[in-house]
Amino acid sequence: MLVSRRTIQIEWGDCDPQGIVFNPRFFVFFDACTAGLFFSAGIDLYGMKKSGEIAGIPMADTRSRFYRPILFGDQVEVETTATEFRRSSFDIQHRLLKDGELAVEGNETRIWTVTDPERVGGMRSEPLPADFIKKLSGEPA
Amino acid sequence: MLVSRRTIQIEWGDCDPQGIVFNPRFFVFFDACTAGLFFSAGIDLYGMKKSGEIAGIPMADTRSRFYRPILFGDQVEVETTATEFRRSSFDIQHRLLKDGELAVEGNETRIWTVTDPERVGGMRSEPLPADFIKKLSGEPA
Amino acid sequence: MLVSRRTIQIEWGDCDPQGIVFNPRFFVFFDACTAGLFFSAGIDLYGMKKSGEIAGIPMADTRSRFYRPILFGDQVEVETTATEFRRSSFDIQHRLLKDGELAVEGNETRIWTVTDPERVGGMRSEPLPADFIKKLSGEPA
Amino acid sequence: MLVSRRTIQIEWGDCDPQGIVFNPRFFVFFDACTAGLFFSAGIDLYGMKKSGEIAGIPMADTRSRFYRPILFGDQVEVETTATEFRRSSFDIQHRLLKDGELAVEGNETRIWTVTDPERVGGMRSEPLPADFIKKLSGEPA
Repeated sequence: MLVSRRTIQIEWGDCDPQGIVFNPRFFVFFDACTAGLFFSAGIDLYGMKKSGEIAGIPMADTRSRFYRPILFGDQVEVETTATEFRRSSFDIQHRLLKDGELAVEGNETRIWTVTDPERVGGMRSEPLPADFIKKLSGEPA
Repeated sequence: MLVSRRTIQIEWGDCDPQGIVFNPRFFVFFDACTAGLFFSAGIDLYGMKKSGEIAGIPMADTRSRFYRPILFGDQVEVETTATEFRRSSFDIQHRLLKDGELAVEGNETRIWTVTDPERVGGMRSEPLPADFIKKLSGEPA
Repeated sequence: MLVSRRTIQIEWGDCDPQGIVFNPRFFVFFDACTAGLFFSAGIDLYGMKKSGEIAGIPMADTRSRFYRPILFGDQVEVETTATEFRRSSFDIQHRLLKDGELAVEGNETRIWTVTDPERVGGMRSEPLPADFIKKLSGEPA
Repeated sequence: MLVSRRTIQIEWGDCDPQGIVFNPRFFVFFDACTAGLFFSAGIDLYGMKKSGEIAGIPMADTRSRFYRPILFGDQVEVETTATEFRRSSFDIQHRLLKDGELAVEGNETRIWTVTDPERVGGMRSEPLPADFIKKLSGEPA
């Protein structure tokens, strides 16, 4: 599988009065890391959303487990990879490392959707394109 | 079990370019709803943090499942309750309702911690006080 | 002028490691308070955006001054009012009170825009409707 | 004056339903850019806060003007510099450029504070250290 890596500097505004990262911030990081994975895979989500080819990849289920506190001033690495593909949904895993050790783990199940003005939210699920799976798997084009 | 309820108005700034709530915002809502549950239970987390009696109740594990899109302008109800108590951790469940139907579910496992300057993050877990469990269970004092 | 009031409970996630509100959070509060002012005035911004009657009311200029620190656990009142109307822009003032004293002041200059796919950002300014000014001024309909 | 530069990728979660950056996000960017300026100047704010040498550099006044919309997918450059030093406060300017043109301008007036448990917010202002001014001015040590 293709693995995308991102370095994140923990800023003052990411942290709560305890001095540790406020947990919703990790989900913000993970969302950007998923975008980064698609970019690494050569999948232009930006363009596909702008052109209307897709509506988006909304979250169906997301979970995060916290093993070591991440503090103000820390620099962390996030490794992001797709771990499973189903008919119209797929799983993404984020491993956030501090000093090389797993500190936070994130998991996402997202849905491939296209625009459908008749639905609430303006979208409906659609089967994953074969090309999308191939690219996220890191297979040569 | 004691159930705490909160009404949330979905604001412009909660929503993404798709017009639906950006998923990390739900974890912000849930954090505030957990604080609201403690308030309803007569547990003064604010005061306990300020006085140094506890360090906080950091997250060990949190998950959210999304069943119906929540849109800009929606008004939702969140029902929050403690669902399990262990030695030094406890579970909180949030049920976010739209038009009376379950739209988003959130689960948290949090740890009861006290200040310990020798640990990373400045805290260590401690057994749940019996009084805390009693109050969250909604038992008469 | 019509004055709209909102009570805000300062949550854990609003605060930084210093224990005070992270300054961008005030701009989030102000945005919601501006929406609240319009609601109080009987102006359905939600509906106007959804129906395409307006594109939005983007910010041209915003400023905030901080006189007293707002802390975790504080409950504050925000008084919001329109202070000036120009051709296609208008000013909003927010006065955030703690224990009845002015603690933070916010000012916004926003632009009335309609959808225009040919512009960057998809919108262009338009003269303020007379009805809009009347309602925000609190004049009887 | 020393100028610090940072490239920011506009993420999905930075944007509102209009597809443009939600204005409070710029203040989050600016806060991180101010931290970056100090880092470039060799001022270890992280360490000074951790060691208790300073309480922080809270905001007294901040303003942002918006000249061109910043959209989802944009990559922007921020140039940050100190523009004025007073007795115990100083000004920071942020120029956010898109395609080389000024799109958003940010200004901050911040206060140099040390810990003082007897004050609300736990801090009081203190004269700017000469060394701090020298380093932010970009003068050789």
